[in-house]
Amino acid sequence: MGLNTTSEIDIVRVSSSKIDSIDFENISFGTTFTDHMFVCDFREGNWQRPQIKPYEPFLLDPSAKVFHYGQAIFEGMKAYKDEHDDVWLFRPDQNMDRFNKSAKRMAMPEVPEDIFMSGLHQLIDLEREWVKKGLGNTLYIRPFMIAIGSGVIAAPSTQYRFMIILSPAKSYYSGEVKVIIAEHFSRAANGGIGAAKAAGNYSAQFYPTKLANEKGFQQIIWTDDATHTKLEEAGTMNVFFRINDTLFTAPTSERILDGVTRKSLISIAERDGINVEVRSVLVSELVEAAKDGSLKEVFGAGTAAVVNPIVGFSYQDVYYELPKIENSFALQLKDKLNSIQYKLADDTFGWTVKV
Amino acid sequence: MGLNTTSEIDIVRVSSSKIDSIDFENISFGTTFTDHMFVCDFREGNWQRPQIKPYEPFLLDPSAKVFHYGQAIFEGMKAYKDEHDDVWLFRPDQNMDRFNKSAKRMAMPEVPEDIFMSGLHQLIDLEREWVKKGLGNTLYIRPFMIAIGSGVIAAPSTQYRFMIILSPAKSYYSGEVKVIIAEHFSRAANGGIGAAKAAGNYSAQFYPTKLANEKGFQQIIWTDDATHTKLEEAGTMNVFFRINDTLFTAPTSERILDGVTRKSLISIAERDGINVEVRSVLVSELVEAAKDGSLKEVFGAGTAAVVNPIVGFSYQDVYYELPKIENSFALQLKDKLNSIQYKLADDTFGWTVKV
Repeated sequence: MGLNTTSEIDIVRVSSSKIDSIDFENISFGTTFTDHMFVCDFREGNWQRPQIKPYEPFLLDPSAKVFHYGQAIFEGMKAYKDEHDDVWLFRPDQNMDRFNKSAKRMAMPEVPEDIFMSGLHQLIDLEREWVKKGLGNTLYIRPFMIAIGSGVIAAPSTQYRFMIILSPAKSYYSGEVKVIIAEHFSRAANGGIGAAKAAGNYSAQFYPTKLANEKGFQQIIWTDDATHTKLEEAGTMNVFFRINDTLFTAPTSERILDGVTRKSLISIAERDGINVEVRSVLVSELVEAAKDGSLKEVFGAGTAAVVNPIVGFSYQDVYYELPKIENSFALQLKDKLNSIQYKLADDTFGWTVKV
Repeated sequence: MGLNTTSEIDIVRVSSSKIDSIDFENISFGTTFTDHMFVCDFREGNWQRPQIKPYEPFLLDPSAKVFHYGQAIFEGMKAYKDEHDDVWLFRPDQNMDRFNKSAKRMAMPEVPEDIFMSGLHQLIDLEREWVKKGLGNTLYIRPFMIAIGSGVIAAPSTQYRFMIILSPAKSYYSGEVKVIIAEHFSRAANGGIGAAKAAGNYSAQFYPTKLANEKGFQQIIWTDDATHTKLEEAGTMNVFFRINDTLFTAPTSERILDGVTRKSLISIAERDGINVEVRSVLVSELVEAAKDGSLKEVFGAGTAAVVNPIVGFSYQDVYYELPKIENSFALQLKDKLNSIQYKLADDTFGWTVKV
């Protein structure tokens, strides 16, 4: 018997749920986890029997490869509850595909579809009470994989742990977001791991972001590391620029993550007659457009915040404030995407999957 | 009372040592650890009381930041035993300084000198039986720090664990090393984290290295990511090129690790009248020198292997074999460095520190 049927996950339930102790109205992002987690280990060349079990810490050896060589990848996804109490995933196939692309780039084993998808569905099914109704309420889903093999020789691990943990989340509002355009620090190298959701890509941004925060900016828009002339992404979000009535966003590449929100917004915009150009945008173009008034909007797109309007940017110590406009593309696209995710509008793209 | 005296480390010893079960003659690198480990946690803005305790696994939450965002750094050092059974460290101040530079770049707290150094000395003192006499025998030392705070929001942790673990090692011989010059993949970005001993820098190299292995090459010499024309480092080693009787090695930079072995070899070479030029070497220069016979040696320099002679390199699918030469600079420098480390020669530089 293989691992092809969903019945083969061992399930150990908590004796009593902690759900009643959670204040769902006042929950901060990524800090509260549900009762259970999904775990599947890889060793001796094979994925082992998957388990759903109580969410709890686990033991690792001090020499575990994840601590020393950073073999670790993740995904970010959400589940939504509609008016009929049905729970929906949004394009989970896209996250699974990207997870396995990340795995390959980090020399980690790919997770078979049946393990990824049946783990996801059965875990969320068990935790469906944790998905709350109402626009903005979601269950944030974090699939991740770490190298758990021991030994401090710099080589890929032979043992891995794939896990899924779940965290209830409110609508993510980060306040007014001002950004700095990167002039010195960089997120990714040509031929590097920028396109992978590898753990190390994120910690690499913490120090430059801290410096930006100290100057009063919340995020950085990264540029290409060789010339710092091309706008790339914001580290946890892809970025869109509206110049007059055209939306621009950088093409995905080895340096830029292939964001699910990014490509979904492009599809919605194109369907609804907004002109979208997927091409590199130069910093100089952005500055010029800000100066001549043709720059109407800049916004980030990612799973956590969905769409994050940016109110201004700094480049070479000059701050450019964006206009407040009617008929914001950012807000229109966010509404349309949310309507699909919460099943308030027809899902003409076939993106939603019932749990 | 502060943490300034070495007496303030809590020490819990194993009930019985496993040392007698270890076959020190047949030990593979980085897989056997000594009886004890050093642990010091950082939380609420302060380093806590350090501990030396039995080497053992520890518990982490599934949402620990190290798993998701790769906040993790390390160092590699060695202890040596001389003919009088004294145990010596080699330039530990250099490792501590680099560790704290890595910490800063990864937005982690710096480890105070008293914690780093007294932890190092007391742990090794306790384990001095594990350091075996004889050239090539060492105790490999792995200080490292990981983010142990919980939560899947992409921001620096507020809790960290600094640890030192020890692994007895034999002379590291990796066989004949052939390398590929990187033409597509890269190790580090301008403005990135290449100069830090950050965990994520290592796993990023595993996949390209695997591809090189499949072609019969053991390692990659990385080039600058923007043009792939400048030779940089080998990922776990800095690289030296001998053209006629001059040694060349790339300057350290944001992209290149400031190796302790690298700079020690430069000092020894300069003292002993070998001409050293610290400058970028172009791939085209290397190929030309290989063709006209002026390229005499290429070797890596790092803590694990000390000096690792390279027998040939591949570039654009052409393999260039290096000549077998008398009076190898690589072997001379290795002997001289080892003689200092094992106290067989006068340490005129003042590099060795007694435990």
